[in-house]
Amino acid sequence: MDWKPDFSSETPLYIQIKEVIKNKIALGEWVVGTKIPSQRALAEHFNVNRSTVVSALSDLMAEGLLEGNTKGGTKVVNNTWNLLAASPPPDWSSYVQSGNHYPNQPAIQHINRAEFQEGIIRLGTGELSPDLLPSAQMKKIFDKFSANSFTLGYEEPKGNRYLREQVVEYLRGLGIQSSPSNILIVSGALQGLQLISMGLLQRGSSILLEKPSYLYSVHVFQSNAIKLIGLPLDAEGIQTNQISRYMKGYNASLLYTIPSFHNPTGCMMSESRRQELMKVCADEGLPIIEDDVYRELWFDEPPPLPLKARDPNALVLYLGSLSKSLSPGLRIGWVVAPEAVIDRLADIKMQFDYGSSSISQWAAAEWIGSGLYQEHAAHIRDHLKRRRDLTLQLLETHFLGIATWSVPSGGFYIWIRFTVDVPMQMLFDHALKAGILLNPGSIYDRSAGNFLRISYAYAKPNELERGLSKLADLVKEISKPSV
Amino acid sequence: MDWKPDFSSETPLYIQIKEVIKNKIALGEWVVGTKIPSQRALAEHFNVNRSTVVSALSDLMAEGLLEGNTKGGTKVVNNTWNLLAASPPPDWSSYVQSGNHYPNQPAIQHINRAEFQEGIIRLGTGELSPDLLPSAQMKKIFDKFSANSFTLGYEEPKGNRYLREQVVEYLRGLGIQSSPSNILIVSGALQGLQLISMGLLQRGSSILLEKPSYLYSVHVFQSNAIKLIGLPLDAEGIQTNQISRYMKGYNASLLYTIPSFHNPTGCMMSESRRQELMKVCADEGLPIIEDDVYRELWFDEPPPLPLKARDPNALVLYLGSLSKSLSPGLRIGWVVAPEAVIDRLADIKMQFDYGSSSISQWAAAEWIGSGLYQEHAAHIRDHLKRRRDLTLQLLETHFLGIATWSVPSGGFYIWIRFTVDVPMQMLFDHALKAGILLNPGSIYDRSAGNFLRISYAYAKPNELERGLSKLADLVKEISKPSV
Repeated sequence: MDWKPDFSSETPLYIQIKEVIKNKIALGEWVVGTKIPSQRALAEHFNVNRSTVVSALSDLMAEGLLEGNTKGGTKVVNNTWNLLAASPPPDWSSYVQSGNHYPNQPAIQHINRAEFQEGIIRLGTGELSPDLLPSAQMKKIFDKFSANSFTLGYEEPKGNRYLREQVVEYLRGLGIQSSPSNILIVSGALQGLQLISMGLLQRGSSILLEKPSYLYSVHVFQSNAIKLIGLPLDAEGIQTNQISRYMKGYNASLLYTIPSFHNPTGCMMSESRRQELMKVCADEGLPIIEDDVYRELWFDEPPPLPLKARDPNALVLYLGSLSKSLSPGLRIGWVVAPEAVIDRLADIKMQFDYGSSSISQWAAAEWIGSGLYQEHAAHIRDHLKRRRDLTLQLLETHFLGIATWSVPSGGFYIWIRFTVDVPMQMLFDHALKAGILLNPGSIYDRSAGNFLRISYAYAKPNELERGLSKLADLVKEISKPSV
Repeated sequence: MDWKPDFSSETPLYIQIKEVIKNKIALGEWVVGTKIPSQRALAEHFNVNRSTVVSALSDLMAEGLLEGNTKGGTKVVNNTWNLLAASPPPDWSSYVQSGNHYPNQPAIQHINRAEFQEGIIRLGTGELSPDLLPSAQMKKIFDKFSANSFTLGYEEPKGNRYLREQVVEYLRGLGIQSSPSNILIVSGALQGLQLISMGLLQRGSSILLEKPSYLYSVHVFQSNAIKLIGLPLDAEGIQTNQISRYMKGYNASLLYTIPSFHNPTGCMMSESRRQELMKVCADEGLPIIEDDVYRELWFDEPPPLPLKARDPNALVLYLGSLSKSLSPGLRIGWVVAPEAVIDRLADIKMQFDYGSSSISQWAAAEWIGSGLYQEHAAHIRDHLKRRRDLTLQLLETHFLGIATWSVPSGGFYIWIRFTVDVPMQMLFDHALKAGILLNPGSIYDRSAGNFLRISYAYAKPNELERGLSKLADLVKEISKPSV
């Protein structure tokens, strides 16, 4: 509920609150059977005395809309359309719990909500800060828009052809040979993963991946009854010596990796590790999903060639995106794979959403085709590097002796390990109260309870300064030295 | 393959063809193991003699890229990067057949491809023809775009708030009370169905629906192991007297209906049928998905109030969209439901694609908020009505005595029943050869083998004239009078 009472109004507070609740019932937001928040929670939320809430609820009970029970719980028992409705509404809460798709982790749901709190400092958010998004250039792109620019109808199943041609050119620059027929335009790399999960894998199969990994934070594969089997990472990337054993032991059908600027660790897979990985997977015939959405965000030198650029055996399903380097709001990414795979994924995408926004596809093609995207990426690299340097300096100042961290050569993330014993849930709660939003390590690996993913991409420099300094204070307050 | 040989080039045709195939192999479009099209098919496609194809393939066999077998099939056995690759590629075709999501019906796949053939007359296509799409006004909308218009970042989980506020206002005009918290912005109504399927229903459950129905033409529910149970339609809509029996017999958990301008029959559910349906479903506690995407397309008077406008028991999940009345390319629709349901669907959408394009959402809000959408809808109604009248007149001229049809009062569709015996697959094939694309009735109901869905929305008036006249000739050619 966003609404807050108007303390300057002549309408008594309890009447304001009563009307707001009545309205929620009338609009069907709170259906019959909904348990409403406790008196204490409502009083806290509205910033009023508990007695004010009690007055409002009593009136609504008198009107027959609410009913309390002896344990103090209060439920909606009727609605304003028809105070004598003969039939109860469907038990929506049982429907909500029935679907096959897993809900987001509670921690992620909490984060998704808290992100929209005003004034909050987001120290873990994996996206570019609003001041790094190219609003002015986007305006330039749309100035080019003419009535003949593009179709307002549905696009071809694989996506707008002109955009696919631009992506082919762009990929050529990364060493990847492709053609418009083996590219599928998707609404972000995450949708690419969803299509792979629904289109290529059987229930009960499993995929190998780095542990920790971004993939643990969503339920794209688990919701289709596909298991995630984590392999250890070292400074050079995923350890390849165990892949064969794990593949056989778990009957794995794919390996998922983020070789460049790994999420959440920031790790860069070395050239020699890439060669080893390709060799092992070729020997085993194990296909790879290469998630390469952070590639453009390098600081001193570009990452080694993508796996897809050294793929004579057609092992690699390649995922790219404009979300991390240009604008997440465009919702444009791509999958590059053998034509038979792309045909299959395109066919399912037609049943998912009938293709991505043609306006977004047009804008993406203009960005890439005009060279503005490449210009913008250079600008972003520059800014991100400065934010990384500031963040490392702040860590040195505030976290020396209580944590260790690695130094990323690009991307968004620093993976911090506390060397003192920090109750992470308590840290999360205290930080949120202090206006700081964190991404705990356990989201990406259940056993990474003493890690945090810090992102220098979203918070502004002064927010990084305030946020990290305050965070260090909180850690020192609530932690005990490790034994 | 779009490529055609250049007959004016000095390069011999067989060399051109050889290079094109080599390129497809080098690019990984045709991976090792791919069975390539037959010599006859290639010759036909390239419009060359079969001997030219044989020369090209022989060369590629000599180079070790292809291998033929005694049955005449030819397979890719190697690729140009590494003619001696040690390992075979993954068996992608087994992956392609493994996924849980059903492929589109072969007939739909065929239609999806054929739609992009140049010059084809699309007599069944369920979308507005390009000349009815508002390119000029879209330009006006984008002229309003300023650097501060909208965020280029991710939107809130339920979608852009300003758009949701506009949708609330718009729905108020249809008699539906809602608020931004019980609206979810989706990438078209189809995505709304996908989210309901994944988020609210159990594997093994079933839903009731009209038979025939659009829903049979996609696999949104079946791919999650949910059965579709068809109920008969009459001139007033879905027959309500059997709902209780079917619900109990099949343990149905939802009823899906398109009450206004039903797809594919064009049927309009009457006021009294709507009241009956709401009563039966309230008595049974059976929730309803109301698919109302054609509502704006009425000709003489607006449809009766939506089911959602008479829903004190919060039974109805309501689906709306801009795709049918404004622009499918925007990919913007909405779901209206109790807040707990919307929260659940929004959470899954965050795992599907992290929200719809923010540019599309901004444009949709501008369309609705400025009143341009309502203006445009009036314009479309006018044009569609004229196309319907023309189509009915053409049917009278050409199909009297061989078919019957109903007269739609809005929407896109006329549901034609042949009174002569027409081998439908043959009609489809012959029509396609003659440059006419059809949507056979069996796509929407397996037993509707002698029906066609005719759409007057896509084909231009002169195409309707040529197409329907030619179609009638074909029917007369290949049909035998019914006994």
